[in-house]
Amino acid sequence: MSHLSSRPDLLARVHRIAGQVAAVEKALSSDASCATVLHRVAAVRGAVNGLLDEIIAEHLNDHVALPGLSDEERAVGADELLAVIRRYAK
Amino acid sequence: MSHLSSRPDLLARVHRIAGQVAAVEKALSSDASCATVLHRVAAVRGAVNGLLDEIIAEHLNDHVALPGLSDEERAVGADELLAVIRRYAK
Amino acid sequence: MSHLSSRPDLLARVHRIAGQVAAVEKALSSDASCATVLHRVAAVRGAVNGLLDEIIAEHLNDHVALPGLSDEERAVGADELLAVIRRYAK
Amino acid sequence: MSHLSSRPDLLARVHRIAGQVAAVEKALSSDASCATVLHRVAAVRGAVNGLLDEIIAEHLNDHVALPGLSDEERAVGADELLAVIRRYAK
Repeated sequence: MSHLSSRPDLLARVHRIAGQVAAVEKALSSDASCATVLHRVAAVRGAVNGLLDEIIAEHLNDHVALPGLSDEERAVGADELLAVIRRYAK
Repeated sequence: MSHLSSRPDLLARVHRIAGQVAAVEKALSSDASCATVLHRVAAVRGAVNGLLDEIIAEHLNDHVALPGLSDEERAVGADELLAVIRRYAK
Repeated sequence: MSHLSSRPDLLARVHRIAGQVAAVEKALSSDASCATVLHRVAAVRGAVNGLLDEIIAEHLNDHVALPGLSDEERAVGADELLAVIRRYAK
Repeated sequence: MSHLSSRPDLLARVHRIAGQVAAVEKALSSDASCATVLHRVAAVRGAVNGLLDEIIAEHLNDHVALPGLSDEERAVGADELLAVIRRYAK
């Protein structure tokens, strides 16, 4: 079982983000003002940043730093993390 | 009618983002690997960045630069944009 | 005279950033810990973000929203801003 | 000796960033156009992002994933990295 499934709070975050995206959709289809749509999308971005930080932390602790991992497992975990950080921090 | 509703492509982007968020949810609940979840969330972030750029452009062109706006309307539009940029570019 | 030169605070910010970059250089050449270098570089990034926000605000107010600009000037100012936002907010 | 000092390319990057910051300073004091200053500052931000990615990678590989580290050293290295990522990826 993946360690992430022991984190129901992550799933709750994703549900909230799904709700925020639905709120953007509603604003766009119901002619809301541009400023309203702007703020809702910026809010989604902030929430996605927060989610990504949490999952990066989980990955770092469980796939790179965790006691008992082999050197090989650590190297793979580190490479996976760097791939996302380089992409994410563009 | 808000100028955004004349941009069906924006609504299509939001639908895609909603689909990507659902894919994150599925990965979390179906025990997908941490690296899979990481990449899916980073993809959502990239898509949200793209959407925000488009809406910032719309707002700039329609509420600040548009010929015929009053000085007051331009000032309000500029302030709304700066509020999002300061928050978004943190 | 460009409106930016009426903002000595901007030049002061740039001096501070130059000092922060020099502190990164010193840390690298004097064998400081990786964590020290990391935090110093992250501090430079934060300061550069703050400077960029200020200059975006100046540009928006002086080259897009300013009363008396021609429609052509506003359109050019808006395009210049969008070019930086798309690049900057990647 | 810190592993970073075995990376002269990092020092070269910092020198380039120092040069870019000096170019911003020159643009501001010599009345360059707002758009010129904007692009120069956005270029500094891009360069700082690139430097930070490199140092994050060094830290991850040398202070978290490196074979032979103690569990305690790995946990400290992971915490140091997360502190910067949370701050950096705001």
